[in-house]
Amino acid sequence: MAHDTNIPAKMTAIAISQPGGPLVLKPEKRDVPTPGPGQILIRVRAAGVNRPDILQRRGTYPPPAGASDLPGLEVAGEVAATGEGATRWRVGDRVCALTPGGGYAEFCLVHESNALPVPSGFTFTEAAALPETFFTVWHNVYERGALKKGETLLVHGGSSGIGTTAIQLGSAFGAFVIATAGSEDKCAACLKLGADRAVNYHRQDFVEVVAEATQGRGADVILDMVAGDYVGRNYQAAAVDGRIVQIATQSGPVAAADFSKLMVKRLTHTGSTLRPRTTEFKAGIAAALEAQVWPLLATRRVAPVMDMIYPLREAWRAHERMEEGHHIGKIVLDVT
Amino acid sequence: MAHDTNIPAKMTAIAISQPGGPLVLKPEKRDVPTPGPGQILIRVRAAGVNRPDILQRRGTYPPPAGASDLPGLEVAGEVAATGEGATRWRVGDRVCALTPGGGYAEFCLVHESNALPVPSGFTFTEAAALPETFFTVWHNVYERGALKKGETLLVHGGSSGIGTTAIQLGSAFGAFVIATAGSEDKCAACLKLGADRAVNYHRQDFVEVVAEATQGRGADVILDMVAGDYVGRNYQAAAVDGRIVQIATQSGPVAAADFSKLMVKRLTHTGSTLRPRTTEFKAGIAAALEAQVWPLLATRRVAPVMDMIYPLREAWRAHERMEEGHHIGKIVLDVT
Repeated sequence: MAHDTNIPAKMTAIAISQPGGPLVLKPEKRDVPTPGPGQILIRVRAAGVNRPDILQRRGTYPPPAGASDLPGLEVAGEVAATGEGATRWRVGDRVCALTPGGGYAEFCLVHESNALPVPSGFTFTEAAALPETFFTVWHNVYERGALKKGETLLVHGGSSGIGTTAIQLGSAFGAFVIATAGSEDKCAACLKLGADRAVNYHRQDFVEVVAEATQGRGADVILDMVAGDYVGRNYQAAAVDGRIVQIATQSGPVAAADFSKLMVKRLTHTGSTLRPRTTEFKAGIAAALEAQVWPLLATRRVAPVMDMIYPLREAWRAHERMEEGHHIGKIVLDVT
Repeated sequence: MAHDTNIPAKMTAIAISQPGGPLVLKPEKRDVPTPGPGQILIRVRAAGVNRPDILQRRGTYPPPAGASDLPGLEVAGEVAATGEGATRWRVGDRVCALTPGGGYAEFCLVHESNALPVPSGFTFTEAAALPETFFTVWHNVYERGALKKGETLLVHGGSSGIGTTAIQLGSAFGAFVIATAGSEDKCAACLKLGADRAVNYHRQDFVEVVAEATQGRGADVILDMVAGDYVGRNYQAAAVDGRIVQIATQSGPVAAADFSKLMVKRLTHTGSTLRPRTTEFKAGIAAALEAQVWPLLATRRVAPVMDMIYPLREAWRAHERMEEGHHIGKIVLDVT
């Protein structure tokens, strides 16, 4: 147990004053939390904004038991204090971390195993843009979807935080990457990040493009956050033995699909949500990321795509930006 | 290459004279085939009847390239001749085998690796009832679904050939087995075979029964040949990290489901069809069955449930029986 000498008693945090639109996000004074066994207290310098934060703000995605009621699933900053038995980090270390909530605040608690070093040369705002999308993509595309070198990865929402991360990792690890996005600008961004093909879904049917680009083979792994009519179309676009990983259902969770395609092609349709998983489970992903992905960040072979940065007190503007849907890459809050 | 001295030039086979109802199944004289490299010629004593045979007869499920145009996916009999390099069996050996087609005939070719010994004490009609359901259940429940001891297995169509096999294997390997069936008689048969619970789907909702019988945990593996509205209900009945394996779509392949359940519970929905798989793939299942399941057959811990036996020439009656849906267990053709 150690701490720096300048930890105040109170901090500014952005709370959800009631369920609703962006303006329900309001600054509040809260007590600075104290790290429990295995935890570290981070002096937050930047906090990433993610779609689940919006659902939580609207009241449709309550935080899991035991988690902070404050929004915010990822932060970067300096270690300000360590709890009992937390030995991995020293006070002052620069870290970024996946949090179970509470990221929109000047201080945030995480388990020491769910933090990673800020990659060499990264700013705090860049580092705060990493955890949520990199943990999510690594687990769903590589662990759950088992994407292999030389296979084809279809990434929906290619210009989102998740999408830009999936394109870069897919490309860096030798997949043929096809991305879908909703404008020519977004498609251009996908190609620049390493996608081999980009599909403007307003102009082209991704099922046809995937068939043409793979000589009829189809996609081996499909990362989907859309659901709705994409489910049946994913079954059409998938290769024999393909894996479809559902990480959100933005077009609606209930949809019809042709399950004879799933059977005849021996597809695997699976999915997951990251937030309710155990600390130990997240620690496993953190270890894999540090070994396999952090070296690519240090050389800038892979880097987060930054959209906009807003001050912590203007978190409502960040939510508005995300809900408007024009962003490309990550939206981050500056907490310095 | 060896053969017995009594192989005739011609044989009786049941052909599909044109797509249609049971009466299009007609006896024909065909040349007795000659085994190619690695193949054996079986003098068929009994042939199993399976639902894909009915679809093939109706013209909706054509045989894969290179397979016989005759129906019949499983046989038992004596080895009558061996092809070049086929060394596993001797002429006269009693075998049962999964065939790529051609089982409704006095002689049938299979690759030597897709045959298994007739279990000790088994008649040919019993042995002919084994391959299709045991290969299918083993692959889908154990290899694809990864059912483990102590887990809960939900078997739809519990009184079918597949269902009765899944119940027995699930029970023998230590799963808690819940079966669904369409009458009180069929439910009684499921319980007798080792099911811990049987659900008459006309009277009870299997989602509710599974929830109650597992204290809300749900089923770890679901073997489904129904599809239609069962897909969404399977997602409801499944446990967290549950696996749903689709092996047919008897209520129709296109259906709506709530994919947020699949995501939040981290379900895996997959499926397969056996017939188009390679000989090598089927050989792998055969080897696993011989090591792990054949000993249970020899002691009658597991045995095929026999419904009715018809003479080869009355194959149309066997199809009629299966289409009426009153059968419990396997329908077999006697070819002696």
